[in-house]
Amino acid sequence: MNSKFVVNFTPTGMLPQKSQTPHVPIYCREIIADVKKACQIGITSVHLHVRDQITHKPCYKKETYKEIISGIREFAPDLVICVSTSGRSFNEFEKRADVLQLDGDLRPDMASLTLSSLNFNTQASINEPPMIIRLAQEMLHRGIKPELEAFDAGMINYAKYIMKKNLIKPPYYFNLIIGNIACAQADLAHVGLMVRDLPEQSVFSIGGIGGFQLPMNSLAISMGYGVRVGLEDNIWYDSSRTRLASNIDLVQRVHSIGKANGRQVMTPAELRSHLGLKRGFGEYGDQGSLDVGDFCKILVK
Amino acid sequence: MNSKFVVNFTPTGMLPQKSQTPHVPIYCREIIADVKKACQIGITSVHLHVRDQITHKPCYKKETYKEIISGIREFAPDLVICVSTSGRSFNEFEKRADVLQLDGDLRPDMASLTLSSLNFNTQASINEPPMIIRLAQEMLHRGIKPELEAFDAGMINYAKYIMKKNLIKPPYYFNLIIGNIACAQADLAHVGLMVRDLPEQSVFSIGGIGGFQLPMNSLAISMGYGVRVGLEDNIWYDSSRTRLASNIDLVQRVHSIGKANGRQVMTPAELRSHLGLKRGFGEYGDQGSLDVGDFCKILVK
Repeated sequence: MNSKFVVNFTPTGMLPQKSQTPHVPIYCREIIADVKKACQIGITSVHLHVRDQITHKPCYKKETYKEIISGIREFAPDLVICVSTSGRSFNEFEKRADVLQLDGDLRPDMASLTLSSLNFNTQASINEPPMIIRLAQEMLHRGIKPELEAFDAGMINYAKYIMKKNLIKPPYYFNLIIGNIACAQADLAHVGLMVRDLPEQSVFSIGGIGGFQLPMNSLAISMGYGVRVGLEDNIWYDSSRTRLASNIDLVQRVHSIGKANGRQVMTPAELRSHLGLKRGFGEYGDQGSLDVGDFCKILVK
Repeated sequence: MNSKFVVNFTPTGMLPQKSQTPHVPIYCREIIADVKKACQIGITSVHLHVRDQITHKPCYKKETYKEIISGIREFAPDLVICVSTSGRSFNEFEKRADVLQLDGDLRPDMASLTLSSLNFNTQASINEPPMIIRLAQEMLHRGIKPELEAFDAGMINYAKYIMKKNLIKPPYYFNLIIGNIACAQADLAHVGLMVRDLPEQSVFSIGGIGGFQLPMNSLAISMGYGVRVGLEDNIWYDSSRTRLASNIDLVQRVHSIGKANGRQVMTPAELRSHLGLKRGFGEYGDQGSLDVGDFCKILVK
């Protein structure tokens, strides 16, 4: 247990549209502005998805990521930046790995790696084992740390399998995403089992889908774990769905809960130290990969 | 807890080939012969997959199922017969539902319904929510009880979701299949959580993949639960993989474990009574669907 908790900020995601909530940032400038405001309150990392700037549909293009990453690094050079390699809308390796090709100061620190195929409410998310392995290899090659996404206990077992194959190096970072209809539920036994199963040297955050975001965030803070919070997973402020949330509302609320629990938000520099990430902007140069031997050995579990 | 345990016999599956084990029954006559021998020892139900009789690859055709079902019903009219609607090799609804069209005495009692997309070792098994719902609707319409297949705790939650939509009627039958690489592991907390999460009025069997079959079968018998056993999930008799098993070896072993535990194998007629299935051969006529109001209300949990 750690007295400081990660706030992994998820401003946009793939699903929310302006028609559902005017608060969701879709344009690059809007995402940058929300990240800036969140940084002023205090966040540790940001998990970015990008949208096509005309259709507002999910997009994979590194040029769009580039605009956002460069915008963020101007005002928050240390913020840990994670990008998405989701295959929910496009499942070709070249598209999913496009953003991993960004270089130098634009290279993301981390990238999402979903650990199995699974079903969402109305759609499957297909991540075949060869795709997961190829994405992990590419991240290793590019010096980008996987943000391991687990929706159920068995997905952590698959992470351990690819760890044994040396495709992921410690320390590890996990998001436990709770409340998806065919995966782990917002139930202490489900979540507790996932936490128990995490490998040593794991830093992790807990997110909840929809109305489960608040209880899962609060549960995580209670226990000294990290939180994944933002409009990607939940657009409502209240459980009765009468008030649409802004990203800032949601970040402020986890701060309030942290304060009442006597816990502080972990700084980006502290998370970089825990995860053995290089320092932010200006430290990357054009090297191809991080020296994984340099990783510090800190267990935040 | 019940003193009698279900033996759900899985002789063939989609994967084992003659090149891996000479014991796997592939031809219809071989499958019928193995089921006959297993019935002589004592089984409760059979979970059938069929293979193309020339290529030995997985097949969906009702004509092939028909040959096996009619062969089995000649000597075991009461045996509960379950067929597969797996989409691992063909994902079109018409193919997956082909076997559900068998009528009269050839109509299967049950059909598999996998409750999510998931990953196996090297391949995804894609079961999108609309496909699951459509298969469940077709089974309901045809009076065929779903054999609900759960590989992880979250998949039981999805079963509860479609129960709320009245697409599955109680009593329920579940297979908990343990030890798949990206799903629930052979761990008391994983299995215990799945058992805890089962809805009331559930009959269930526990199977294990590969070397997990024996410990999961034995665990199930210890607790009075059912077992799923056969070459579909495991081709070895011993954990050191020195001796290939026959289906009969595996069925005899669960009998030995049952005997040592003072438990008997449930008869097909008893399972029919628990699940509210009509009696076997000769009782079906050409009616379209069972009267779900007739289901008895027995909880075997």
